[in-house]
Amino acid sequence: MPHRIAAIQKATAHLPHPGRMTMLAIAGDSASGKTTITKGLVKALGDMRIGSFCTDDYHRYDRVERKSLPFTPLHPECNYLEIMEQHLQLLTLGQPILKPKYHHSDGTLGRPELFEPQEIVIVEGLFPLWSKLSRATFDVTVYLDPPEEVRRRWKVQRDTGKRGYTEEEVLKDLVKREPESEKYIRPQRAHADIVISFAPVEGRTESDQTMSATILLRPTVPHPDLSSILTSDTRESVHLKLIRDQDGKPVDALHVHGHAAEASTKIVEETIWQHIGMTGEIPQSLGMISETTRSAPLAIAQLILLHHLIRS
Amino acid sequence: MPHRIAAIQKATAHLPHPGRMTMLAIAGDSASGKTTITKGLVKALGDMRIGSFCTDDYHRYDRVERKSLPFTPLHPECNYLEIMEQHLQLLTLGQPILKPKYHHSDGTLGRPELFEPQEIVIVEGLFPLWSKLSRATFDVTVYLDPPEEVRRRWKVQRDTGKRGYTEEEVLKDLVKREPESEKYIRPQRAHADIVISFAPVEGRTESDQTMSATILLRPTVPHPDLSSILTSDTRESVHLKLIRDQDGKPVDALHVHGHAAEASTKIVEETIWQHIGMTGEIPQSLGMISETTRSAPLAIAQLILLHHLIRS
Repeated sequence: MPHRIAAIQKATAHLPHPGRMTMLAIAGDSASGKTTITKGLVKALGDMRIGSFCTDDYHRYDRVERKSLPFTPLHPECNYLEIMEQHLQLLTLGQPILKPKYHHSDGTLGRPELFEPQEIVIVEGLFPLWSKLSRATFDVTVYLDPPEEVRRRWKVQRDTGKRGYTEEEVLKDLVKREPESEKYIRPQRAHADIVISFAPVEGRTESDQTMSATILLRPTVPHPDLSSILTSDTRESVHLKLIRDQDGKPVDALHVHGHAAEASTKIVEETIWQHIGMTGEIPQSLGMISETTRSAPLAIAQLILLHHLIRS
Repeated sequence: MPHRIAAIQKATAHLPHPGRMTMLAIAGDSASGKTTITKGLVKALGDMRIGSFCTDDYHRYDRVERKSLPFTPLHPECNYLEIMEQHLQLLTLGQPILKPKYHHSDGTLGRPELFEPQEIVIVEGLFPLWSKLSRATFDVTVYLDPPEEVRRRWKVQRDTGKRGYTEEEVLKDLVKREPESEKYIRPQRAHADIVISFAPVEGRTESDQTMSATILLRPTVPHPDLSSILTSDTRESVHLKLIRDQDGKPVDALHVHGHAAEASTKIVEETIWQHIGMTGEIPQSLGMISETTRSAPLAIAQLILLHHLIRS
């Protein structure tokens, strides 16, 4: 063995040192908004070498096989998590990976795809913050934490619309998933640098789907200095408050009100944009929750992530 | 970057040192006998933890896609060779891989498969000795080198029988493959510790399909000492000769005559078997070229490989 490892080291000694790369994790339960937030970021950074993938690709079983299994995709045993960790390490070292591929449209596992390291890599999914090893591969980590009733509504909408399930199936699945969600997914919240929660505007009427955002900025990474932008002009729509998190630890909570006047959210957006060192218009993809609907709280959350992607 | 690599090193520091593992490469052109020789070895070592795979699994394109490409599967561009090298390295380090899967029966690329490191791993295919890096991962390396007319006959038989091609397609394909075979496959012969050539018995009649074997034992690894077994009893059926190879380098050439009397090949087989340190019967899978036909020259070639697998 040792002679072979030495031979490999010799054979790879000429390889260039991996270039600069920033890796962002976006973890969260099913239908918590991971893909929406990722898509806007990837589109906004279209000029840079950016790539993203979902850890659902590491599902060990396809939809048919899962029917006879005693666990859901939220169980570690239902995923090749050891391989996910290995692939995250390889990317960190600047190496390409041949990534498995799970097709959500029909629940099948397909041929793997080459994924090459990029300047920026966003990894979203159920498990990116699963282990000490997987967490060590990221520069900045996010957990999406909408209230359960919001996530349930989003999941029903998406899975009946895009993944060919009936509403009854989705609701039954949510019940089955709950214990595994509690045990394996939600504990990842504790390991995120940023926790984002989109929730209905307080005191809203039933028909009002507008979301506010609460963005917890943990002191585990250096965040943009927001004190300068939280002036009297913005105070009503956006405010920063020092709070204790669920676990009692101190954290900055940035609240962006869903019904804030565009004039004041615009100031916040522009200031973060300049803070990043960017000129020109803010990319139009930021804040888009559909082809036609824009959410300023989402845009602000994404701009904070952009700050980390570009400045870290 | 460096901080992340350090974090990964820290997170993996508890992992056990990889166990003892022997890796054997069997390279050679299409239909040169790689699978036949591998199958017999895997079956013979059934009691040990042994695994094998074919580097054809690293094909980048499926059969339909290849139809519109200017190269054949023998071209490096037609394969994920960088990923193959990476996976060989990972196995050498005792890590599992999620290996792509090419289905020869219908020419499709399927879902990848978990392949875990074993005591003995045999990697056969068109490209295992392709690069300095891939070669560095093996303990012993073999190249199968039958005369072209034999290989053509084998290829037509197999591809029309098992892979759904017509004879005309196979012959046309052989012509298309020749320049890439010369450029990319045959140069791997120079990097093998052992070169095995099965060829028709000299002076045979047309209907006689019996094969002799010439086994070149290069002084790059310590081979079993055969001098003791090449006595007057075996001299006619098996002999060892010091020759110069095609490239002028000195090499031991072990010739096993296809029509040798079973009594004398049996002596050679038994002696190598004991030389390895094995007791009991020689495994019945050795030498089998079909369910019912046994070839003593194949058995002797496989026994020499067994020596390397068990003793190295």
